[in-house]
Amino acid sequence: MEIEKRIRELAEEVKAASRVLADIPATEKDRALSAMAAGLRKRRDFLQKENRRDLEKAEAGGLSPAMIDRLTLSDKVVEAMAAGLEEVASFPDPIGNVERMWRRPNGLMVGKMRIPLGVVGMIYESRPNVTADAAGLCLKSGNGVILRGGSEAFHSNMAILEVLHEALEGTAVPAAVIQVVPFTERRAINILLACEEQIDLIIPRGGEGLIRFVVENSRIPVIKHYKGVCHVFVDAGADLEMARRIVINAKTHRPGVCNAAETILVHKDIADRFLPLMVADLLERGVEIRACEETLAIVPAATGVQAATEVDWDAEYLDLIVAVKVVDGLEEAISHIAAHGSDHTETIVTSDYHRSQEFLRRVNSSVVMVNASTRFSDGGQMGLGAEIGISTTKLHAYGPMGLEGLTTTKYIIYGDGQIRQ
Amino acid sequence: MEIEKRIRELAEEVKAASRVLADIPATEKDRALSAMAAGLRKRRDFLQKENRRDLEKAEAGGLSPAMIDRLTLSDKVVEAMAAGLEEVASFPDPIGNVERMWRRPNGLMVGKMRIPLGVVGMIYESRPNVTADAAGLCLKSGNGVILRGGSEAFHSNMAILEVLHEALEGTAVPAAVIQVVPFTERRAINILLACEEQIDLIIPRGGEGLIRFVVENSRIPVIKHYKGVCHVFVDAGADLEMARRIVINAKTHRPGVCNAAETILVHKDIADRFLPLMVADLLERGVEIRACEETLAIVPAATGVQAATEVDWDAEYLDLIVAVKVVDGLEEAISHIAAHGSDHTETIVTSDYHRSQEFLRRVNSSVVMVNASTRFSDGGQMGLGAEIGISTTKLHAYGPMGLEGLTTTKYIIYGDGQIRQ
Repeated sequence: MEIEKRIRELAEEVKAASRVLADIPATEKDRALSAMAAGLRKRRDFLQKENRRDLEKAEAGGLSPAMIDRLTLSDKVVEAMAAGLEEVASFPDPIGNVERMWRRPNGLMVGKMRIPLGVVGMIYESRPNVTADAAGLCLKSGNGVILRGGSEAFHSNMAILEVLHEALEGTAVPAAVIQVVPFTERRAINILLACEEQIDLIIPRGGEGLIRFVVENSRIPVIKHYKGVCHVFVDAGADLEMARRIVINAKTHRPGVCNAAETILVHKDIADRFLPLMVADLLERGVEIRACEETLAIVPAATGVQAATEVDWDAEYLDLIVAVKVVDGLEEAISHIAAHGSDHTETIVTSDYHRSQEFLRRVNSSVVMVNASTRFSDGGQMGLGAEIGISTTKLHAYGPMGLEGLTTTKYIIYGDGQIRQ
Repeated sequence: MEIEKRIRELAEEVKAASRVLADIPATEKDRALSAMAAGLRKRRDFLQKENRRDLEKAEAGGLSPAMIDRLTLSDKVVEAMAAGLEEVASFPDPIGNVERMWRRPNGLMVGKMRIPLGVVGMIYESRPNVTADAAGLCLKSGNGVILRGGSEAFHSNMAILEVLHEALEGTAVPAAVIQVVPFTERRAINILLACEEQIDLIIPRGGEGLIRFVVENSRIPVIKHYKGVCHVFVDAGADLEMARRIVINAKTHRPGVCNAAETILVHKDIADRFLPLMVADLLERGVEIRACEETLAIVPAATGVQAATEVDWDAEYLDLIVAVKVVDGLEEAISHIAAHGSDHTETIVTSDYHRSQEFLRRVNSSVVMVNASTRFSDGGQMGLGAEIGISTTKLHAYGPMGLEGLTTTKYIIYGDGQIRQ
């Protein structure tokens, strides 16, 4: 009961503070973000001392070195958090913009003005830097935020909160717009997910298990992103050098992230020429290949090249592994993506105008590209400012979510006394 | 089990058909809508024969005359359904539009293209004309739709479906993009709400009980709209004649609908002059008034004027009743709306530039107006084309939802071989 009461109180406080924040002009918000950045730099020793408590527990608990690495607030990570807040301060404020207004026959002027969503609930794992990043993006977009990080980062997250709250003193932004749920119990998540009167949107960041748990237990709308099974389709007549560069970049630039390519589809008319080149490139970079029968007929099984099974077409490897399939043409590529894709990101490498347009039109993944690496599916790379997450559900936001993704629009109407007839 | 299997099959069929529909050009969709309109007119006798079966049951069951009226497919209602489909055909197609593209430093062109949501699930009560209206809007916006109407309209809804399916034969649009759940059991709704792999959005239309049931049981995002507690704030220095006309129109033009005003807030500096005029106007039109103390000091209690209690400030009367409160100024009006409003529609009547802008900026209801009647909060009146519902949740859509509200955007990227550094 105590936990439930406290979380509801926190949610109420964030909601009340978010109403104040919604009308604070950009200059004041940017001043607050700069103060937060300065605070993180100034209190680095304190942050690292508190982080040490989490790290000791993690080491004692036998967490993997990779996990411990993600948990560590190194000098570099603290500086990155501070620089991130300053970068967000430099972005244009989305709030209050009216993109167009139209005039109705009775003279009413109708338009849509961009407004904050209200309160965002973030549920995430390990990396404590998400705490500062999410707080910054939500603040700039005029939203309150209530954060629930992983229990392994508890002391680090509470320390970051303390520093951010100190920094907001003396600014126009009420400290209560940023809150951290101070409980490590799993049921704290359930309580948060039931605060539908206070929270407008839930963004979970973490593994598929966490996201499914959140979706199944939330009464609040959730931005979902289960996985990224991204495709590269190399069309007949593609510039083969370009195709090689894009395939290598999409697969090997950073294989552990969601916008890395997992399946390469190759048009049958160029398979003979392209597959030997591509396979040699990939093997050279240590990529393991799961190939369809047609591919194996051209590039025989060898070390690192094996026959694909049905599960390979749906796999998100997040590793130096790739599935390769020869297709009859655009039609089969599009059906394969519809059947096995995850609505994340797909790219076509082509020199044909008509097929480039057809691919863009018919593939309804959240990001669809022509002649570019899937690795560009990223808020920063696409010019959206930073990114708070990626949505693969088609509602509200679809694709990388930047500042604009953290807002919605209300209709505004200017009349001069019109009444309805 | 049989019901569950059949509903899941239907949902799968709609999903598959919606993929085809997503890429059908506007001319073909408009041709299909015209064929549907012609079909409804041609088969009016059949529709009315089937409607008769529902009406007989309703009469035997003792349904209220108002309910029976809403259930009846009169000549006028059938013609309105047909005309509605033709009107939707005349709207511009939102699909495929790219509003702007921007160029990144590496030459990538990034933009957002409007696409359908996929499959919409409509859950509604009584009025069978919703079946044709929703089918038309979804078809035009490229979405499949699966409809679940009230059990009292079962035969009417199935007859409309049959006529629409017949009409789609020989058009480019697959008939399966429109489906009706052929079961009247309540649990059919629960089954539909669990089809998260097939359905992208649920729109419930009906009473608050139905909407709460849907929200609590759905794994699919829901467009919510519980109630419309709309406010008119009459500012100091308002044109009193304009204020009188707007108050009367907002309250009495059609009191039973969600965009009718429920509370009038009056600035204390004009209360002495304005309240006697307004109260006389309202009483003359048979409106019952629930007044705050300050109001009663100016306009003494009389037949039709009584003291308001706390519940009046939150009430959605949907009737010829109105709450009236004197406020200190804009600040109190905005706090009152934040505390008691339902995020639907609010209007300020004012001659002051600064206060008009502050009201527009700070009130974050889905439609915020200056000097216009709340009755204009309507897709048709605002120029959005027809309206499939109104959203008072701030996600995806906020306010009246027309064709654009039934779409989302995907990012599209044109490259010429860029790879990520």
